[in-house]
Order: sequence, then C-alpha cells, then structure tokens
Amino acid sequence: MSEPGVAIIGVGMTKIKEHWDKSIVHLLVESGLEAMDDASQKEEIHAENIDIGFLGIAYAGSVLNQRHIGPMLAEQVGLASARAYHIPVVRVESADASGGFAFFQAYLAIKSGEYKIAVVSGVEKLSDYQGITYITSSSLDREYEASLGGTPHAMAALITRRHMHEFNTTREQLALIAVKNHENGFYNPKAQFRKKISIEDVLDSEMISDPLRTYDFAPETSDGAATVILADSRLAKKYTDDPIYVLACAGASDSLALHNRKNFVELKSVVQAAKNVYKKANITPRKVDFVEAHDFATIYEILAYEDLGFVKKGKGGKAIEEELTTLKGEIPFNPSGGLKARGHPVGATGVAQIVESVLQLRGKADGRQVKGAKIGLTENIGGTGATAVISLLCNGDAL
Amino acid sequence: MSEPGVAIIGVGMTKIKEHWDKSIVHLLVESGLEAMDDASQKEEIHAENIDIGFLGIAYAGSVLNQRHIGPMLAEQVGLASARAYHIPVVRVESADASGGFAFFQAYLAIKSGEYKIAVVSGVEKLSDYQGITYITSSSLDREYEASLGGTPHAMAALITRRHMHEFNTTREQLALIAVKNHENGFYNPKAQFRKKISIEDVLDSEMISDPLRTYDFAPETSDGAATVILADSRLAKKYTDDPIYVLACAGASDSLALHNRKNFVELKSVVQAAKNVYKKANITPRKVDFVEAHDFATIYEILAYEDLGFVKKGKGGKAIEEELTTLKGEIPFNPSGGLKARGHPVGATGVAQIVESVLQLRGKADGRQVKGAKIGLTENIGGTGATAVISLLCNGDAL
Repeated sequence: MSEPGVAIIGVGMTKIKEHWDKSIVHLLVESGLEAMDDASQKEEIHAENIDIGFLGIAYAGSVLNQRHIGPMLAEQVGLASARAYHIPVVRVESADASGGFAFFQAYLAIKSGEYKIAVVSGVEKLSDYQGITYITSSSLDREYEASLGGTPHAMAALITRRHMHEFNTTREQLALIAVKNHENGFYNPKAQFRKKISIEDVLDSEMISDPLRTYDFAPETSDGAATVILADSRLAKKYTDDPIYVLACAGASDSLALHNRKNFVELKSVVQAAKNVYKKANITPRKVDFVEAHDFATIYEILAYEDLGFVKKGKGGKAIEEELTTLKGEIPFNPSGGLKARGHPVGATGVAQIVESVLQLRGKADGRQVKGAKIGLTENIGGTGATAVISLLCNGDAL
Repeated sequence: MSEPGVAIIGVGMTKIKEHWDKSIVHLLVESGLEAMDDASQKEEIHAENIDIGFLGIAYAGSVLNQRHIGPMLAEQVGLASARAYHIPVVRVESADASGGFAFFQAYLAIKSGEYKIAVVSGVEKLSDYQGITYITSSSLDREYEASLGGTPHAMAALITRRHMHEFNTTREQLALIAVKNHENGFYNPKAQFRKKISIEDVLDSEMISDPLRTYDFAPETSDGAATVILADSRLAKKYTDDPIYVLACAGASDSLALHNRKNFVELKSVVQAAKNVYKKANITPRKVDFVEAHDFATIYEILAYEDLGFVKKGKGGKAIEEELTTLKGEIPFNPSGGLKARGHPVGATGVAQIVESVLQLRGKADGRQVKGAKIGLTENIGGTGATAVISLLCNGDAL
C-alpha cells in the first residue's frame, strides 16, 4: 500500500463525565492543548502552524443559546496568535455524528491541497440542561416521529423488536454487548463508567423502552471534548515518528424517519459508507483489526457487526455470544468501552472514536490494547442512522 | 489564467419573502429542482449524478426543534433515487455565514478529488417564530454581549458610531447604501423588496438602534432557499456551455465578542479571507467587476468597501457618495439588492450571493446586469464578523 495523503499527528480528550464545573470552552481548551502537546513529539507545533479548524457540536449551541461556536474554537484553543486567530473554523452538525462529519471535512480539506494542517474538535455539554430527551429527539424526524412521542431510545427499541422477530436475537445477546463494553471501559482511564457489570445487572436494570433497559443505552448525559490534529502526510514526520494514516473516510445518508425506510434491521447509511471506504482503501473487512462502533443502544452494535460486513445479516446476536468481538476475539469492537461505557458526549463522540483508534494503532492503549492492531475502523451515526460516517485508519505497519 | 478546477453548472433560488405557506422542505425542493433544471442545459442531470451535498442553515433547526437536517436534503431535493438517496449531506452552521461556509466545503470536496459533483443548499424559515432577535443574538457572544442585551442590530450601531467618530462618516452616506440597494433590488424578480426608496425614507424610518433605523437593516424575517451545483471543471462542459468557475474560496475567523477585538472599524476576518482569495487567484481587487457583500446593516457595506481593498480604511462613506458602487459605478456592490432589498434568509444568504454572481457572470441579470462582468466576489459574514467567507468567481472570458 502506498502512503495515504492524510495523517493524524496528535490527539487529546477530556475525561468523559458530567462536568458540572467546566464550560464548553474549558472542555475545548483542555482537549485542544492535550492534542497540541501530543503533536509536538519531535518539533513543537504552534498555533501558527494550524491552517483550518472544524468543530463538531450537536445540541449544546441550542442549550446555551450560543450558536456560531466555530470562532470560539479559533479564539480559545491555543490559536490566539496573530495569524492563527483568523483561521477559518467551520461548525458541522449532524446530530450524534457531528464529530465524525467534522473529521470528514478536515480530511477533505487536507486532501484538497489547500490546507496542510487541520484541527478537529468535538464537544458537548448537556449536564446543565433539563429535558435532554426533547432536544436529542430533534435528531429524529420531528414532524412525525418526535412530535408523536418518539425518542432515540424508543426508536432503538422498535429496531430491536424487529431484529428479535426476524432473526431470533435474544435479550441475553443484547445484554452481552453492554457487559463487553463495560469490561473494556474498565481499562480506559477517560471512560465515564469504569465498572464491570454482569448480564444480570443489565437484565435487572430499569426498563427504558421495552425491551431495552438502562444498561442497554449510552448514558444520557456525557460531557466532554476530543481533539485530533491532521496533517498532509508529507509534513507529518516533522512532528511525529509515528503518524497514523487515514486510509479512507466517507459519509452517507438515509431517510430521517424510520417509517420511510424499507426495513428497520439494516442501516443503509452504514452499509453505503462502509462500501465506499472499503472500496477507496481497497480492502475487505477481514483486514480490519478493531472497530470503534456507535453503540448508542446495544442493538446498534449488533447492526454494526452486520452492516459493516463482519457477519451476515441476522448473525449479529450470535457473534457476541461467540465472543467474536471481545477484546481477545477475532474482531474486537469498542475497545474504548464504546458509547456505553466511555460515554457519549454527542458532538465529541465521532472524534473520541478517532482518538481511541489512534491510541490503539500506536500500541498505547494499555489494558485495553488490541494486540498487533494495524487497521482500525470508526463508525459514527446520527439519530437512528439518517447519517453515518466511517473512517479507516492505519499505522505504518499496514503500509 | 488556466482553467480552475471547480465550476458551477447550475443555480436555483426561491423568491425571498415571508413564506407563510411553505415549509423548509418546500423551499429546499423548489430551489433544488430549479438548480437541477438549470444544470441540465446540454444533458439532463439526475440525482444519481450527485456525489455529495452540503446544507447551510443557521437557526431554523432550533426554531423547529429539528436538527439533523442534512439528510432531509438528500431525501427531499430530487435525490430520492437508489444511489443518491444515500449520498452524504453535511450541515454547516456559521450563523449568517452558514450558506457561504457550506459552499466553501463543497468547493473543498470537489478540490479533494474525492467527489465530482456537489450540491449546496442554504435555507432559512423564521417567519413562524416569535422572538427572532433572541435567536439571532446567539450569533454574538452570548455570555457577555447577548445576555446583557446586545443584539446584532445594537452591535452594528456601536460599529457605526465608532466609524462616524473616526472617519466622519455621515448619516446620509449610510442612507445612500440603502437607497442604492433598493434601486438594484427593484430589478430583481426574486428580491423581497422591489421598491425604490429615497434618502428621506431612510432618515425618516423608525429608529432601531441609534443611529441606525429600519431602512439601515436587512429585513428581520426573510424566508427562502438557494441551491448551487458544483462540478469538477473537466465534467462541467458535459452539462453546460457556460460554466462559471470558482477562482478561489476562503474563510476566516475573529473573536466572537466585539469587545475582544483591537478595533471596531475593521473586520479582520474579512481582511484575512480577502487577502487569501486574492493571493490564491493571483489578482488584485482592481480585477473584480462586482461584489455581492454582506450588508446586514448599511455600515457593513461601508466596511466591505474598505476591508475588501476597494478604498482605503475610512473612505467608505465617500465611496458611496461618489457613486463608486452603484450599478453603473466603477465597482458595483450588491447588484441583487443585497441583504437589504433581496432579503436575508440567514442560512441561504451566502448561497444566494453565489446564485446572483452566476447570473451576472452569465450576462443574464436583466435590468440589474453589470455590463461585461467577468469576475465577481461574494462576501458573507457571520454575526458581527466573527466568521467571514469570500469567494471569487469568473466566467470563461476571464481565463
């Protein structure tokens, strides 16, 4: 494989939790400075070296009545020097996939040849807000789904019921996803939940939307920020001996409303975006060593097994039962703990997935390290999958 | 000049007005179909030919409690075929500059070589909403400016006072901007206001924020959508004999809050973005034949004369007095009528500026045509200039 044109040279992330004592700006600065520091292994990177910025944020702008948050990043995240102060910073919103789509735009910006170094941050802070479900339901079709009481949790339950009906997926299989992701998150110092749980914990947890219970879902409030610094590959080695490459990145859309889709049990946006990245990188799923998937609810990780091409449609439940996707399995899913245990700081989630993948590909993921990982895939979806964005990353050993 | 890599092959726009009878989707579909039709001069363009979409929308998502509007575009704007249904559509938000930044992203997407044809739409619909000023003030710094009563209108008044103080800019000079833009808008069938006005009309209109009056501002409610289809230049001639080229496109940022800037009378974001596009296109402002500028308030057009390099700082008032920027002047500004008379459908404004420029460069702008126009510039700013995005377009005669 020849060297891809876009590389990642630095990553940073706050701890994910309810940050009652920090503002959006605090969170951005913290993750931004960590990423700048991380990108300064061989030569110090300065604000003046950054050419363009992207910011993924889904709801916090509405919550704070502060839109136009792009320039806040330019102003605050260590970019306040004369030149960099005026770099463009573009805010991207695609519900839960905001961070992933911001990364996608940064990738295109470097690929265009017009910019050499880009910074991408994702951030969300919902802990100040009462009534989060009302606001997160705006990622669904408001007119027919949300206005009639549909919530992201209820929609996930609909999908689950259908998957159970069509493929005999069991309640226990779903629970195993949560158990696995809590197991992984235990080894992630930045995870929101570092607590191992049992199948019984999941099955005994409070019912949210039948058949899904509390432990089937990502936490409702996860505050945090994540930052990634990308560079033209030709420049990357100036800053690091260990650049991580972007093999491919692609997005796709589907109908906003679930009822407009032909079926519930396949996310066409994921299927399409996956097809595109595999084709662009000229690899098959077999080449992938681990996946950071969008397990907003346990069912979404089962769909990911299938829609990303690791198992046939309907075999997702079996895959977790057979431990295919545990840390020591054939294709580990969510070594970070996933949305379930690392947490789901909405606009930051897609960027956090990239951060985890970079650590894995550098071999620096400590207790949750996927051994010998060379190629990683991130899957970030918005709402019930009306948008999806997928990236394939690799380290130098894969080339 | 060699042929630039990115071309515009089709444009469409709704009439700008208070569209009480149409939804966001209606408006998007209307402008989208017009653009598809416009791009089908030589060969019909189909949904399957579109590779990626971008959507500029500032506030309507919050107003409707509908975020995640990107996929609505994919689903609704004639893209419902099997393949195109799943194209990625990325929503970009940068307050008033959302449309311009969406265009910027589409430009980068084509430049990256990863996509051949992109559609960009901008849309806004605020006429259903009570309390627009509260929501548009979220483009300012909420914590210090907006929460203390600052509004986009009041901030413009502060800038105006300072400009008057430093450069003896007069109330009459400001009024002349509104008079000129209403004169131009009279000839634009899609303009919100097609009514010529006098200096007295401006000076006698209701005071909004001293010294600025009703006629100094863009209308508070302008609903509408605009769509532009971009293509790799090598593909463009398949669809049209008259492609319009993107010579350069660049964005820049500044401090969100006015009080964090060194001065009020220069928009550094505009200065920086202008410097970048002139450099990229290797031209001076003298080569530009017309400008679509962001005259949210009359003062902003005066600043644009200066910050875009057409007159020295402080000479903007004199420029309008000497009719430098009228339709028959040396450098016509806002032939469309500008935000003042065409209207300011927030997220659509940046795209509407591109639509007007394309019509001008095709020589199809009827009564408001700038004679022999070969190169046009668009200037789209967010809030009080915390973001700015500038494009330089040209027709085949400029090459």
